[in-house]
Amino acid sequence: MELACLDLEGVLVPEIWINVAEHTGIEALRLTTRDIPDYDQLMRGRLALLEQHQLKLSDIQRVIAAMGPLEGAGEFLDWLRERFQVVILSDTFYEFAAPLMRQLSWPTLFCHRLEVVEDRIVNYVLRQEDSKRQAVRAFHGLNCRVIAAGDSYNDTAMLAEAEAGILFRPPQNVIDEFPQFPIARTFDEMRAEFSRASLRRV
Amino acid sequence: MELACLDLEGVLVPEIWINVAEHTGIEALRLTTRDIPDYDQLMRGRLALLEQHQLKLSDIQRVIAAMGPLEGAGEFLDWLRERFQVVILSDTFYEFAAPLMRQLSWPTLFCHRLEVVEDRIVNYVLRQEDSKRQAVRAFHGLNCRVIAAGDSYNDTAMLAEAEAGILFRPPQNVIDEFPQFPIARTFDEMRAEFSRASLRRV
Repeated sequence: MELACLDLEGVLVPEIWINVAEHTGIEALRLTTRDIPDYDQLMRGRLALLEQHQLKLSDIQRVIAAMGPLEGAGEFLDWLRERFQVVILSDTFYEFAAPLMRQLSWPTLFCHRLEVVEDRIVNYVLRQEDSKRQAVRAFHGLNCRVIAAGDSYNDTAMLAEAEAGILFRPPQNVIDEFPQFPIARTFDEMRAEFSRASLRRV
Repeated sequence: MELACLDLEGVLVPEIWINVAEHTGIEALRLTTRDIPDYDQLMRGRLALLEQHQLKLSDIQRVIAAMGPLEGAGEFLDWLRERFQVVILSDTFYEFAAPLMRQLSWPTLFCHRLEVVEDRIVNYVLRQEDSKRQAVRAFHGLNCRVIAAGDSYNDTAMLAEAEAGILFRPPQNVIDEFPQFPIARTFDEMRAEFSRASLRRV
């Protein structure tokens, strides 16, 4: 069986933290792993900023609920689900993703979770280290052939582990460092890359 | 994260081979693993009957397309997907399941596949041996907590491997042999059992 593993932010939905930064005016929330490579340090900083600005989970969920998927993402996902089994592998949190998943008809999502006390985000819990790569390995153990697509650094281990990897609208540094992966800049190009990568030429 | 693993036939959709037997009048297609415990022998017999009666894949797909999910199954699955990540673990074949998956908004499905030559089903290919149990084990390796539900013998390994197992409308021999699993006879009871089994008491 052929399994399509997709990153979420930057592929199907906008970058969540950047949207929160824009809606709240807190510029420091724009920082990503491109600026602070240590994920734990980045997340500790984000949680400290939320605390400092008294931003609750429900405030962030309100921003996210207004976001919606990227233009064409819903149609692309519908196309993909008819032709492959689909699992979303993301480094976001269930508490953030839910309002967007609803708009995408609840595809299966493997991501992380937040610890929330009375609407305050007090901690985050990773499902596991190197979670995207580990998921592809586990699917291989179930005799799945995996085609993966993502947009950034934290997707490249998943793309490399899969039988085929596709970069969707990647930044230039990822293009330069990973020239082995084909690039799709539109959802039509994504459909074409998935068709090419499929043994069934769907 | 909490993952819900569901059997397909008898839980979300009717028994496919029994429906094909009824529509074609070929009584021998009613036989199941209850009658012929050796799955390979059962499937060889089914394929021989299809050949003998000149039944093509498209004939069977036409029967399946007219079936539809069980009453209340779509609403139950919607309820489940909002609260858990869902993966369907089934011993059916992708070529049979597709028309039903469409009516259930394409949940992620792990099952087997058929080898088809010019619309003739010439063979079947299992994804792997003991496939439902292996899938639950792989999900455990991804730090998922699994709640599983199924209706018959071939589900009991999955139910035992999961953190919690639920029998849905099981036959009496399964009830007698596996008294450790709670029983749900309606989708309301299924919702209640999933809520009880969840650490989050959804």
